[in-house]
Amino acid sequence: MNVKIEKLIKQFAKLPRVGTRAATRMVLSLLQDKTGKAENLAELLSDAAQTIHPCSICGVLTDNDVCEYCSDVSRKNGQLCIVRDLSDVLVLEKSGVFHGRYHVLGGNLSGVEGVTPDDLNIANIPTRIKNENITEIIFALPNTVEGKTTQQYIITTTQNQNVVFSELASGVPLGGDLDYIDDGTLTLAFGGRKKL
Amino acid sequence: MNVKIEKLIKQFAKLPRVGTRAATRMVLSLLQDKTGKAENLAELLSDAAQTIHPCSICGVLTDNDVCEYCSDVSRKNGQLCIVRDLSDVLVLEKSGVFHGRYHVLGGNLSGVEGVTPDDLNIANIPTRIKNENITEIIFALPNTVEGKTTQQYIITTTQNQNVVFSELASGVPLGGDLDYIDDGTLTLAFGGRKKL
Repeated sequence: MNVKIEKLIKQFAKLPRVGTRAATRMVLSLLQDKTGKAENLAELLSDAAQTIHPCSICGVLTDNDVCEYCSDVSRKNGQLCIVRDLSDVLVLEKSGVFHGRYHVLGGNLSGVEGVTPDDLNIANIPTRIKNENITEIIFALPNTVEGKTTQQYIITTTQNQNVVFSELASGVPLGGDLDYIDDGTLTLAFGGRKKL
Repeated sequence: MNVKIEKLIKQFAKLPRVGTRAATRMVLSLLQDKTGKAENLAELLSDAAQTIHPCSICGVLTDNDVCEYCSDVSRKNGQLCIVRDLSDVLVLEKSGVFHGRYHVLGGNLSGVEGVTPDDLNIANIPTRIKNENITEIIFALPNTVEGKTTQQYIITTTQNQNVVFSELASGVPLGGDLDYIDDGTLTLAFGGRKKL
């Protein structure tokens, strides 16, 4: 195969959940397209790579100094939702369930993978609480050991400020069949059962 | 979401078998990467889009005037394998089953989709037969109505030249369980049964 095409396929195959076969399909479709899809994608990508960077306050990707959420005054409701990744922000925004500000950590603490607080966007949380009059911190982190460790670390380092902490409820998902729920979730759902 | 990121996701979602969710995952992984994956991919793609084009003889994508297969004299064995897409060439090359020259049509004739001979890389096949002393044309086209129609059209337009035509055998694939083989394939396999 042509070396340039081969290199391109290798780069596409590095994308998440994309194998060599899917990457080949993508590259061939781009290069065989006559409407300029490949040039268009290259331009958009190059422009984004040069101008997109994390928001200096919350870590959401933006091409301005401050992102759309941090600059939106209607979102200044005292609530700060702490998430791991930008993709979590997108999921929450799509659901329309939250109307406050976000804080993207960029990962979770992990002994195994060697992720320390210095690797994450954690240090400026106390400053944000003060500057933005945050009254409630809502943790929307993964329900894993790493997520809970990160949550506990943030609580410990910010608890002397006048702020309430909360986390998303654990339990059986809507439409969830008990047959398919793991034991850990069932234990949490039992422990958190509600009186009717 | 940021407009530039949104545009990029829309472009990625146009790739074959990529939905919005997968496209979002790809774009975020590219833009959050700190090793320059996005710039690298944009450069490779832009370069390929400007330099890669179909080989003037066979239609395989290349950045030279004539592709690696057409310029390889060891492949001048009188055999010409006619395929629909470049991806078919890659599959055949991987298998190592064929060592002659290729001819990529860029599609198949289709009344439904309005694909005529003028839309395909068909016109120069007679010239190739003469110039490259082709003695056998092997059709490796899809086993569909469109594939067979295209094959018949090429046979009709080139049969006054001194060339033998063949097509790939139809039948039960290796390891194929009869339970899972469709009726059409079974009919072909019965019709083409071999004496032992």
